[in-house]
Amino acid sequence: MMKTWTGQGWRDFQDGDLRPDDRGFLLGDGVFETLRVKGGTLRRGDLHRVRFEAACRAMDLDCPARWEAIAEGAETAGEDAMVRVTLSRGAGPRGLGVIEAPRPGLFLSASPVSEPPDGLALVTAPLRRSPSSLASRHKTLSYTDNAAARRAAVRAGGDMALCLTTQGHVSGGDCANIFWICGSELVTPSPDCAIRTGVTREAVMKCAADAGLSVREGMFSPDALQAAEAIFVTNCALGVVPVRSLDGLEFDVRHGAVQALKRAEVIVG
Amino acid sequence: MMKTWTGQGWRDFQDGDLRPDDRGFLLGDGVFETLRVKGGTLRRGDLHRVRFEAACRAMDLDCPARWEAIAEGAETAGEDAMVRVTLSRGAGPRGLGVIEAPRPGLFLSASPVSEPPDGLALVTAPLRRSPSSLASRHKTLSYTDNAAARRAAVRAGGDMALCLTTQGHVSGGDCANIFWICGSELVTPSPDCAIRTGVTREAVMKCAADAGLSVREGMFSPDALQAAEAIFVTNCALGVVPVRSLDGLEFDVRHGAVQALKRAEVIVG
Repeated sequence: MMKTWTGQGWRDFQDGDLRPDDRGFLLGDGVFETLRVKGGTLRRGDLHRVRFEAACRAMDLDCPARWEAIAEGAETAGEDAMVRVTLSRGAGPRGLGVIEAPRPGLFLSASPVSEPPDGLALVTAPLRRSPSSLASRHKTLSYTDNAAARRAAVRAGGDMALCLTTQGHVSGGDCANIFWICGSELVTPSPDCAIRTGVTREAVMKCAADAGLSVREGMFSPDALQAAEAIFVTNCALGVVPVRSLDGLEFDVRHGAVQALKRAEVIVG
Repeated sequence: MMKTWTGQGWRDFQDGDLRPDDRGFLLGDGVFETLRVKGGTLRRGDLHRVRFEAACRAMDLDCPARWEAIAEGAETAGEDAMVRVTLSRGAGPRGLGVIEAPRPGLFLSASPVSEPPDGLALVTAPLRRSPSSLASRHKTLSYTDNAAARRAAVRAGGDMALCLTTQGHVSGGDCANIFWICGSELVTPSPDCAIRTGVTREAVMKCAADAGLSVREGMFSPDALQAAEAIFVTNCALGVVPVRSLDGLEFDVRHGAVQALKRAEVIVG
């Protein structure tokens, strides 16, 4: 399914809806949001809305549709689906010239939900994320660095890249937030660490107390991960996924606290 | 003009040539190169080729056309034109999953050449570039940060953003390299400063000796710019353009050495 917003509501995508002079294509100039539809209902719609609207504000993008219409559109994808909302700045002059009257394009696409893996092998990426970069902090159409980090991780036999900041602090997975368990603490990089403050990240932090954990956000060196009892990553498509190894160092994918958080995340709104 | 490569040569772009599941659109996953056609001939084709091929290698991208065919295609744009070559990774699975058999898409678009301004007002961008980022070092389809820097500069009454690295060193304009004059020295950030090593940058460095200047590449604090006699930026579309002001501090746009380099750049191959 691919839908596009026409101003008169949603319609199926047609050839020509996306033009090659679109800034989203030429410059990665736009944002997206990945939504999970479960049992015909958009999951955590309010959290996604807050994040999507924050990304639009940060990018000076006016979305041509109200969030309610996007959410409704997403729910037409089926009983269970991943829906990606892509908002592009639209066509503009050559180069970086500011568009006088931008006409942003809105696209919805749906994919089946896939079963999360039991565990992921992380490989630390050579490239570092700038904490001040919009591309690091929001879901923009500029994912080159994450895609490159993923390719390097896969080449090294891994499943996902671990990205650090330019200051050398842990940031997160190439498309996921990262957490680790240290005694009774659930530890995760703070928003200053070039992370997207994920919707599932937020949900997991809400579950921590029930799992007997206190949450500690901060700026951590990668050594902190090596000393962790267990590590996991989160995103909206996968939920909570244990980390099987980090740069070859193995971790317990059946750690009790991680399993408890995985179960709790499925329940918490 | 917009052309696309089909394997049987170039043809005019048609609706549907660019699909919304293209990674170039969804993730900014691809590269581009901006070419200048002058008198029906591609200018500095060899330098552009070296840079384009380096970007493809860095991105693990196989270009479906030989450079000669791209150059020939560019030269069909007209006697005088800017031609943008856009290479996208093509369609792939949801998320960052590695594409098994990628079919990269190649697009050429042409724009008229515009007269460069007499001088540009630069405004320092709040965001910082990571020197290890592919998006910083190559012309990728992930230009979100440059576009955001430009918008902020324009909002502040400027024409172009000056970007710094995460370490606080001068990097360059949002879509240009930067140089300044300090006595008999022509100073510019080194390739370690999150810059794209521009084709016009290289040409200007070749002209320096004839203009009585020695070239100094390095990592410089923004203070170095404030103490400069004159500043200019370079790119393939504009050539050499003097900087009129930086964050409100004014500079001489008629500085002799800058004018000499501007004239020399027009001549040097």
